[in-house]
Amino acid sequence: MRKVVLGLGISLDGYIARPDGAVDFLFMPKDYSMGPFFATIDTAVMGRKTYDVALRMGGGSYDGSGMVSYVFSHSQPPGERGGVTFVNHSPRGFVEKLRKSPGKNIWLMGGGELARDFLKDDLVDELYIGIVPILIGEGLPLFPSGFPQREFTLLEHKTFSKGMIALKYARTRPNAKRK
Amino acid sequence: MRKVVLGLGISLDGYIARPDGAVDFLFMPKDYSMGPFFATIDTAVMGRKTYDVALRMGGGSYDGSGMVSYVFSHSQPPGERGGVTFVNHSPRGFVEKLRKSPGKNIWLMGGGELARDFLKDDLVDELYIGIVPILIGEGLPLFPSGFPQREFTLLEHKTFSKGMIALKYARTRPNAKRK
Repeated sequence: MRKVVLGLGISLDGYIARPDGAVDFLFMPKDYSMGPFFATIDTAVMGRKTYDVALRMGGGSYDGSGMVSYVFSHSQPPGERGGVTFVNHSPRGFVEKLRKSPGKNIWLMGGGELARDFLKDDLVDELYIGIVPILIGEGLPLFPSGFPQREFTLLEHKTFSKGMIALKYARTRPNAKRK
Repeated sequence: MRKVVLGLGISLDGYIARPDGAVDFLFMPKDYSMGPFFATIDTAVMGRKTYDVALRMGGGSYDGSGMVSYVFSHSQPPGERGGVTFVNHSPRGFVEKLRKSPGKNIWLMGGGELARDFLKDDLVDELYIGIVPILIGEGLPLFPSGFPQREFTLLEHKTFSKGMIALKYARTRPNAKRK
């Protein structure tokens, strides 16, 4: 079954961005490659604010690198435009539908608010987190409070240059009866 | 010089305790021992709320396991009683004085509020964090917001049973001229 993978770089104090959305503290170690991760996914899902950041970083256009991209938004009308598909229904129904169609894994790119919605509905199957060795002191959390407890299993850990450590976890569902 | 080591177990979403102070989600892996860490310290420093939790867990008495123990409190009068010394002055002056006396490292046991005060004054030399593979969804954060950016270097990482990973970091001070 297609898995939903929440994958992001964070500060040591758990932030995906500074309060203004800046991610200057994150870095891509020279010995790290997103290649193996990208090979496992074909679909990207993000919140509207994360999409806006991606747009800004792309100079006004969105580069999905060949991934089918969905943007969750309460304010934007649903539908396909500019290389993405806007979605305004619940994560649960959306993921159920995606899982029924063939494909690779689904990358939940953030932000924290959408991650919380997905965690509320227990839709996150894997976590893939790169921790940079910096406390930034304030920012936008990867895991904002307000979802039930979720247990995971540590699958992998790997360190890279400049003290980045990547941790991969799989959701542990004791009574795995998900349809 | 004696180092201040902020050492704690946390959930994957960065909490040291549930909202009510409970730490039932933390566990001590069978293959993990605090021995090597305890061998490097002889002094414990904690906030008053953390002390209260330690008291409750000790059935009303505090067991410092032979460590000289200090409790930071704005409400309690300073002085030694019940196996600890209450302190109400600033962390900076306190640590400067401790560093001048001989001894091993100083364990900053928490909680998050005292950790923030120490980080504000840039008094944390090492982090020693055990991450359990559970998102608890809400709680008391190890790193509450409100201190300046602090860079660290990853010194060690080690995994234990049940998916606990221990990370050790040292503070990177580019212009290390601390007196």
